[in-house]
Amino acid sequence: MLRIALAQMRVMPGRPDRNTETMLKYIANARKQNADLVIFPEMAIPGYLLGDTWEQTSFLEECEACSDEIIAASKGIAVMFGNVAVDWAKKNNDGRVRKYNAFFTAQDGRLVAPEESPYPFVVKTLLPNYREFDDTRHFFSLQKLARELGVAAENLLSPIRLAVNGTTYAVGGLLCEDGWSDDYGLSPMKIICEKERPDFFVNISSSPYTLGKNNKRRRVFSGRAAEAGAPLLYVNNVGIQNNGKTVYTFDGANAAYDAHGVLRLSGAPYEETTQVFDLETLPERKPVTIPDEPEAAQIFRALSYGVRLFLETIGMKRVVVGVSGGIDSAVAAALYARVLPPENLLLVNMPSIYNSETTKGLARRLADNLGCRYTTVPIQPSVELTVEQLENATIENLFDGTTEHFNISSFMAENIQARDRFSRILAGLAAAFGGGFTCNANKAETTVGYSTLYGDQSGFLSALADLWKYQVYDLARYLNETVYNREVIPQETIDIVPSAELSDAQDVDKGQGDPLHYPYHDYLFRSFVERWQKATPQDILEWYADDALEKEIGCAPGLVAKYFPTPKDFIADLERWWNQFSGLAVAKRIQAPPILAVSRRAFGFDHRESQNGPYYTKKYKALKAKLLGE
Amino acid sequence: MLRIALAQMRVMPGRPDRNTETMLKYIANARKQNADLVIFPEMAIPGYLLGDTWEQTSFLEECEACSDEIIAASKGIAVMFGNVAVDWAKKNNDGRVRKYNAFFTAQDGRLVAPEESPYPFVVKTLLPNYREFDDTRHFFSLQKLARELGVAAENLLSPIRLAVNGTTYAVGGLLCEDGWSDDYGLSPMKIICEKERPDFFVNISSSPYTLGKNNKRRRVFSGRAAEAGAPLLYVNNVGIQNNGKTVYTFDGANAAYDAHGVLRLSGAPYEETTQVFDLETLPERKPVTIPDEPEAAQIFRALSYGVRLFLETIGMKRVVVGVSGGIDSAVAAALYARVLPPENLLLVNMPSIYNSETTKGLARRLADNLGCRYTTVPIQPSVELTVEQLENATIENLFDGTTEHFNISSFMAENIQARDRFSRILAGLAAAFGGGFTCNANKAETTVGYSTLYGDQSGFLSALADLWKYQVYDLARYLNETVYNREVIPQETIDIVPSAELSDAQDVDKGQGDPLHYPYHDYLFRSFVERWQKATPQDILEWYADDALEKEIGCAPGLVAKYFPTPKDFIADLERWWNQFSGLAVAKRIQAPPILAVSRRAFGFDHRESQNGPYYTKKYKALKAKLLGE
Repeated sequence: MLRIALAQMRVMPGRPDRNTETMLKYIANARKQNADLVIFPEMAIPGYLLGDTWEQTSFLEECEACSDEIIAASKGIAVMFGNVAVDWAKKNNDGRVRKYNAFFTAQDGRLVAPEESPYPFVVKTLLPNYREFDDTRHFFSLQKLARELGVAAENLLSPIRLAVNGTTYAVGGLLCEDGWSDDYGLSPMKIICEKERPDFFVNISSSPYTLGKNNKRRRVFSGRAAEAGAPLLYVNNVGIQNNGKTVYTFDGANAAYDAHGVLRLSGAPYEETTQVFDLETLPERKPVTIPDEPEAAQIFRALSYGVRLFLETIGMKRVVVGVSGGIDSAVAAALYARVLPPENLLLVNMPSIYNSETTKGLARRLADNLGCRYTTVPIQPSVELTVEQLENATIENLFDGTTEHFNISSFMAENIQARDRFSRILAGLAAAFGGGFTCNANKAETTVGYSTLYGDQSGFLSALADLWKYQVYDLARYLNETVYNREVIPQETIDIVPSAELSDAQDVDKGQGDPLHYPYHDYLFRSFVERWQKATPQDILEWYADDALEKEIGCAPGLVAKYFPTPKDFIADLERWWNQFSGLAVAKRIQAPPILAVSRRAFGFDHRESQNGPYYTKKYKALKAKLLGE
Repeated sequence: MLRIALAQMRVMPGRPDRNTETMLKYIANARKQNADLVIFPEMAIPGYLLGDTWEQTSFLEECEACSDEIIAASKGIAVMFGNVAVDWAKKNNDGRVRKYNAFFTAQDGRLVAPEESPYPFVVKTLLPNYREFDDTRHFFSLQKLARELGVAAENLLSPIRLAVNGTTYAVGGLLCEDGWSDDYGLSPMKIICEKERPDFFVNISSSPYTLGKNNKRRRVFSGRAAEAGAPLLYVNNVGIQNNGKTVYTFDGANAAYDAHGVLRLSGAPYEETTQVFDLETLPERKPVTIPDEPEAAQIFRALSYGVRLFLETIGMKRVVVGVSGGIDSAVAAALYARVLPPENLLLVNMPSIYNSETTKGLARRLADNLGCRYTTVPIQPSVELTVEQLENATIENLFDGTTEHFNISSFMAENIQARDRFSRILAGLAAAFGGGFTCNANKAETTVGYSTLYGDQSGFLSALADLWKYQVYDLARYLNETVYNREVIPQETIDIVPSAELSDAQDVDKGQGDPLHYPYHDYLFRSFVERWQKATPQDILEWYADDALEKEIGCAPGLVAKYFPTPKDFIADLERWWNQFSGLAVAKRIQAPPILAVSRRAFGFDHRESQNGPYYTKKYKALKAKLLGE
């Protein structure tokens, strides 16, 4: 019998000391449960998303020393774990020391080497270099190693032989992407199977959560196990890790599939937990079925987990949320109120003359419902002082001795209000409260920069900036109906027209609001950002001309005709937002706070962009001319 | 005879239409000069640093259509150029359509295929994935292609045969990194030479400028030509390109080396120009020697070029610089004054009660010297209003019905001042002036976040944030002595103690200033960021213990003993700044403006980082305990 413990541990990125401590505890617990083998995730010791920390020699040495501790702790138990492996005698292609993303197996105080590997560990074969992943920047792949050694990659892949209780098990060791081989033209699992079908496969991963990803993982790994005809054990970490601009939650979701690909064991998402089982009786366990959940439930779990751990990571205990009475700030406040005790959450309403009694009242009701701290700081006196100071400032033209004065337009005054609220009031209050203030921008606003830099585009974290507006509404309803089970977000906040309330033209009581038709623009913008091959005005206009637009972008039918009576209206709207998306919005995103990722394409490190301005192809221009009858 | 034109063209990233137009003009000019062959840089059509624009199908189609235009324009002349090449039938490892970074040769309206290439173009063999480069994210390498085809990469490399005036020339076509093969274990040049020494090599590049890089290019390519025993022509673009957070200038610096590696022809840095010569008489030309220049001259050229083109790229014509009387803002103002007409530059002094008459006078003198626009807007009334509003705000504790008030400390008031200046005054004035305002932070401040977010850390561009403080001083002297040839930056600004003047404790008239000892900290911080293997407190403390620190980090001898009488003082300083560098400074950099790169390691896309907090290794802790006698 082989008793196995899958350690769904929390990995702290950049903290080999703490991760090693955690692993030693899991090993001790596994021993208590009479496990013969305990399996940890990929990069369990260093963490995975570390930027260029991999270029610090001392950090690499520390990771090696931690490996030694884990190896020493493997007396009487086998331990599989991920860590960086360094070959100090060789170089990467960038000229720096050679590093591998490696899968170690330790037993009785020494490493168990895979038979045909040139190193006493498994080298990751497939290195992802898309989305938020950067593996090829730092790690040397098995293929490159094979080329260097003058052999085929196939020669270097082989099972690990693990002797336990008198039986020797052949184990196929895989690192994360090694199991996602469809687009690589090389499958480590197939190569190993062609040599000898292992008794089981182990895939150690460090795989961030995004919406729907766990379903995909199950489809892929269930299929792989069935193909191989061998059980497959999937071990992933929990916790959060970030690439600076983008913060990812890791949901763990460990899994054990039998040789037919049936899921027999599953780790609860985001929990620090261990799954212990006997390999031989795995097929006898009841199949696990994971119930479908509404999207909002998944989003709430990911966001609340992410916010809680992000606050912990940066050591922030208190949070200020500017609340306008509108939907985004209300959802942000209700989210933070689930993560923080009420005395650590301060809501602030900052009215100007343009804010209606309606929204001021809604902000107050939200605070009452949440029972946290609340204050009101009007911005009118300061905004008036600013406009007056700027208009009264004498500009001396030193080149000709003349002087002049500037005029502050109503558009400029809108931005002055937004900056006054965030950079003056919220930043000051947050410091006085001993915490930070939140950015409540959603993904639609973030896409087109419908926000003010150093105003509502600022904050320590954008928890909602990977949610389209409809997802913000869904989350609001879910918070009321399920999380709180009462109306914490006032229904009027959900029903009212979304508005920035920065001028007379944005009067919510007259139903005047944002220039965005969210039921359409949410989907248009999604096609710019999240579509597999990103859409541009050329694609959009071709679909429009073919009457296929609503179907292609996924919005409700009839909206295009409703919002845009003529091609001219349609094109003006398209170009307006494409210009923003590729223009000023890029500049704003460069200076935006970190974003908590939930979609399969969040802004930041997973959506790399340059400040190059909008582009229209020749095909676009020709089609536009045709549609406009030019 | 083969007459060759090296086109040192300006490439506009993301503008295939404009680049194609430019290339057609260069081709027409080359024809007028009776050239037989005109050579353009790598990725001449699309540009190189484009983020994830490569995922837009319509953009790829547009680039292909532009290729066709160039091919059609090659009647009677051969044209070599870089572009993206798409194989619509195949996939990259990320599952998206197959893309190559490709070298095309066109002649008489059709492509000239390299003999052994599976495509009618050269596929880039070595794809850099370090520093600011991201090639492997988007492009498929020749090695991967070879593996897919089941052959060695060697089999796919061969010369291009170009028939001109009755002679057939064998040309070795290389793309940028293909010539920098030292760390790859595979040299495209050697492979080609082993088959048949070409008549000449062509390296088309898109190679950003950084300090000292052109010297390195010359060393490398002169060596390569001599090794190969064949002339080597190097063609690079000018212009600027950015990765969002980091803006790079491209200096061109085209070069023709003869078969002995002697430089015979060289393009002036940053100029749009063409070098025309006859291949056969290249060795008869006078060798080119490039005179050594002071670092400040190079920095000034790169920054003024970068600033000018960045303004052009984002369509900004007017700039506001907040001037304190200190060195950084004075250098920024003097730099912008060389790029903009005086009426488009507005300097603003924003005194509080802590600003001395000395620095206020220096700010005014700077403006007088530059003869631009100038104004003064005091921040005292607004700062007082803010402190009063924040302290008077009644915080309602809705969980227990009590109320309270916050207290604004003097440290909080410092940040309020900084935000007031930038987010309130400068942002408002810039909008009214129809432009943007600058961030004047230097690299030392940026490293440790000695700045206020939404305060002096804000702006549309950080032109000085890749310069250590000593480089800012050098640039100040260079501006006065050489660029302006008169004292535009007042000598007192250069001589005065650097100070933020945000409190009584920072009184310049008493010689009180920043908490940084720049002559030491510049070099300490550089070791954290720019050192080949990045230094951490462990390295620093080991060097300190070995009395090797000043030598290792490159600062003047004696400074460590002068600033830090005891190990305790030394360690306290080290930890203070390491905590900042790995902590709050990361958060500030995430929201910082784009940085104009000049060093070999600028913050941003070339210094990837995660918000994970500071780390101290076990070796560090042990050595610290030993030094402190614990």
